[in-house]
Amino acid sequence: MLQATFYHAGCPVCVSAEKTIVDALDTNRYKVDIVHLGEQANRIDEARNKGVKSVPALLINDQVMHINHGADLADLG
Amino acid sequence: MLQATFYHAGCPVCVSAEKTIVDALDTNRYKVDIVHLGEQANRIDEARNKGVKSVPALLINDQVMHINHGADLADLG
Repeated sequence: MLQATFYHAGCPVCVSAEKTIVDALDTNRYKVDIVHLGEQANRIDEARNKGVKSVPALLINDQVMHINHGADLADLG
Repeated sequence: MLQATFYHAGCPVCVSAEKTIVDALDTNRYKVDIVHLGEQANRIDEARNKGVKSVPALLINDQVMHINHGADLADLG
């Protein structure tokens, strides 16, 4: 399975993007993890190291896609 | 079928996003159109009316997701 990770912070922009884009992914080919960085602050460094600068962001095959703009990662911790 | 439309302008950021996100969509449920606004300038107004402000952008269920940033729509025409 390929890996997709959706990082968010529970903000309205995040929730809206999550509903739309995560639902549209092909879950027969992609394992989709959803990470709430507000609740899993220990994963903020992981996100930063992957190149995430703001949320919501979708990471697929090590490529970061910043989707619209909810909050800067720097504001999360 | 649900409809997804990927608007781009052929820029490197666009091509990179297209490869990753369009490939990850579930094409059993979504009909995916790819629109190159540099070559189909007659569709710039359509994109603008849908709320697209920059490319690459993915439109699903009338929700616009601006993915990273390649070019402003205003610079395309």
